[in-house]
Amino acid sequence: MNIQANDPKITSWVTVSKDSDFPIQNIPFGIAMPPEKGPRVATIIGDQVVDLLTAYDLGLFEGVAIKREVLAERYINDLMALGKNACRAVRNRISVFMRSDDTLGAKSHADRLLHKVSDCELLLPVKVGDYTDFYSSKEHATNVGTMFRDPENALLPNWKHLPVGYHGRASSIVVSGTPVHRPVGQTMPPDADQPVFGPCKLMDFELEMGFVVGKDSKLGHRISTEDAEDYIFGMVLFNDWSARDIQKWEYVPLGPFLAKSFASTISPWVVTLDALEPFRTKGPEQDPEVLPYLKYKGEKNYDLELEVTIRTEGGKEKTVCNSNFKYMYWNMCQQLAHHTVNGCNFKVGDMCASGTISGKSRDSFGSMLELSWKGTRPIEMPDGTERKFLKDGDTVLLRGFGKGENGYRIGFGEAAGKVLPAVLPEE
Amino acid sequence: MNIQANDPKITSWVTVSKDSDFPIQNIPFGIAMPPEKGPRVATIIGDQVVDLLTAYDLGLFEGVAIKREVLAERYINDLMALGKNACRAVRNRISVFMRSDDTLGAKSHADRLLHKVSDCELLLPVKVGDYTDFYSSKEHATNVGTMFRDPENALLPNWKHLPVGYHGRASSIVVSGTPVHRPVGQTMPPDADQPVFGPCKLMDFELEMGFVVGKDSKLGHRISTEDAEDYIFGMVLFNDWSARDIQKWEYVPLGPFLAKSFASTISPWVVTLDALEPFRTKGPEQDPEVLPYLKYKGEKNYDLELEVTIRTEGGKEKTVCNSNFKYMYWNMCQQLAHHTVNGCNFKVGDMCASGTISGKSRDSFGSMLELSWKGTRPIEMPDGTERKFLKDGDTVLLRGFGKGENGYRIGFGEAAGKVLPAVLPEE
Repeated sequence: MNIQANDPKITSWVTVSKDSDFPIQNIPFGIAMPPEKGPRVATIIGDQVVDLLTAYDLGLFEGVAIKREVLAERYINDLMALGKNACRAVRNRISVFMRSDDTLGAKSHADRLLHKVSDCELLLPVKVGDYTDFYSSKEHATNVGTMFRDPENALLPNWKHLPVGYHGRASSIVVSGTPVHRPVGQTMPPDADQPVFGPCKLMDFELEMGFVVGKDSKLGHRISTEDAEDYIFGMVLFNDWSARDIQKWEYVPLGPFLAKSFASTISPWVVTLDALEPFRTKGPEQDPEVLPYLKYKGEKNYDLELEVTIRTEGGKEKTVCNSNFKYMYWNMCQQLAHHTVNGCNFKVGDMCASGTISGKSRDSFGSMLELSWKGTRPIEMPDGTERKFLKDGDTVLLRGFGKGENGYRIGFGEAAGKVLPAVLPEE
Repeated sequence: MNIQANDPKITSWVTVSKDSDFPIQNIPFGIAMPPEKGPRVATIIGDQVVDLLTAYDLGLFEGVAIKREVLAERYINDLMALGKNACRAVRNRISVFMRSDDTLGAKSHADRLLHKVSDCELLLPVKVGDYTDFYSSKEHATNVGTMFRDPENALLPNWKHLPVGYHGRASSIVVSGTPVHRPVGQTMPPDADQPVFGPCKLMDFELEMGFVVGKDSKLGHRISTEDAEDYIFGMVLFNDWSARDIQKWEYVPLGPFLAKSFASTISPWVVTLDALEPFRTKGPEQDPEVLPYLKYKGEKNYDLELEVTIRTEGGKEKTVCNSNFKYMYWNMCQQLAHHTVNGCNFKVGDMCASGTISGKSRDSFGSMLELSWKGTRPIEMPDGTERKFLKDGDTVLLRGFGKGENGYRIGFGEAAGKVLPAVLPEE
């Protein structure tokens, strides 16, 4: 596929530092509120938010098949719904008017077009319809199975035959920067015979990536692994906050519910699948062989370096996890093919998350549950405290990026959330 | 509570048969497409759809705080979002202009205002955001636990302490009348060591009722059992179609997924909680005592007779289940209080279903799984065939109503769906 905006030789008239997630080859989509402006579709280059509604008003999209109102929306759903070709044309045009040779004279309008990202409020980019969470890292599922069930049979019998997943809560998906109160709920303490009510004691993050669907499918229609990429608009970092003690008590037999639904945090910029093309890589071998509807051709995993950093209340940071999206056993195309094999339909804005992305080594585990091995191996923090699970005041930051050939990187920014104390009901 | 439109003495200038679900005391809300008209908010009296957009244009809502565009919407979400008081005023006004004394002169416009329901297309009334399915009938959970686990410990330890629930798929909720293809998927046949792919062999219905949320709550806000009714706009019949063989293989450890997400069928008219006031009744005693956040005052169950009828391909019908919504162990207020105790937010249009509503007697079980006791007790049909689970060509009809004091009944119409053969992928 020849995607013009991906050309590694292009540079922008905006200065972009070498380690920026947002060189001109990225051009993700999001919703920004620049100072004294309302919400609008935007992109980012370096540390400059590019106001695409203003770009439209400046005539910079002339000849591109896009209407002004799509760029004035509160969410990018209507933009995605235009289809991959139309969005490619938008992304390519942005690449043209932001490149160094400035043939469209955009630079002379920089004061209207650009805003420092630190001056903007970045809003939830997608109106999420349905949200599904998968469980597709073999290392994560093996770790959990080893801790809670039988180390000899850590993976359940279905795990290698289908991408296990469950429906999640869409309403509580929030954008990076939104603080998250420690949830309150029912738990059954060890050796107790009555459940107790109170703040979650085992609060955790889960390092995941989410994909956003940009095309409707009809009820009854199956999406093949071959067609799946037509439906996947782009990706975000996804922190599937988890309350391990609430989960343990509630999840049998129908799965996780309140242990997950209090909040999930995503990064503010949806990075297009187009921009991630250079990072395609082979997935792990799947043995036993999968059923025909789950077979796929080509490289469907992505080499994206991921990390989780915890910033304690005093401001000191420690990166507790270095993982990679390429470890996933089940890829996104398989997830979508499985999800729709029964005829389940998708709508623009629906989101699927990968499940916790763990690697083989201990420092690549994507949750505190695994990193501290159920609390038995606490992690030392730079301020001298230790962590088995998250404490109030901790900020969890997910980051991720692919490294391009010419040294640039295509990144996601961050999905950050601070844990605030539980709010108890007034009695 | 004094709800004027509920007055059992009122009669309408529209003829209403005695066994109609829709006397003038009901006035549910839905979306209808009358002949040569676009979708609009409507209600029904007897077998006459009342076009509320036209009612507005005729001046019949003069003095009521409602805007025309709300009645011209494709869904009733914006109507619900006006709040309970505004919707009460709308319902009361409809009661006034449709009553026998016809003080507003509506009857003279009957040709514009009314359409026979058989001439209208009834559309999905609610744009569903998130959908949650509970599991709140003790009899159902006990039956399932007895069949699949241990008859001595049929209920899992958490069941009586919290209303067990899980997130479901909103995109595939369809309106009554929409045919449903038998889903295709992975199953693990007994004694096999590899899963197989093909049409579901154990297709089932689940008799449930759903409630529709008509008011937003904020992330982090808990809805108390006392406040819960402010958030519940109304109710529908809900058929949670289920593929038992797919479910059995996929559901460990994260719960039902593709076994449910191929379709759920709801009735087209949302009956307001106001209209159901006369049918309040006491719920079953809850023992052990529930935690304080789940305690409630007053009567929160509803005496609503429910039935499931199967119509075979040749047109012969048999009512296979007679149940009642009053059997529910956990009521809707408890469900909503539990759902939000962790701070999970609700949005207008979110839906919660009750879980299968089974009674104590065998003929009150709300699924084929229970009625045929896992296929061991087939049901004889009037055409001489028998049913363990559903066959292609079967139409499943859920019906339900409360019986009012003066002999009128407040009903839901029906939630009907025909099972069509599986569509296999082209190989």
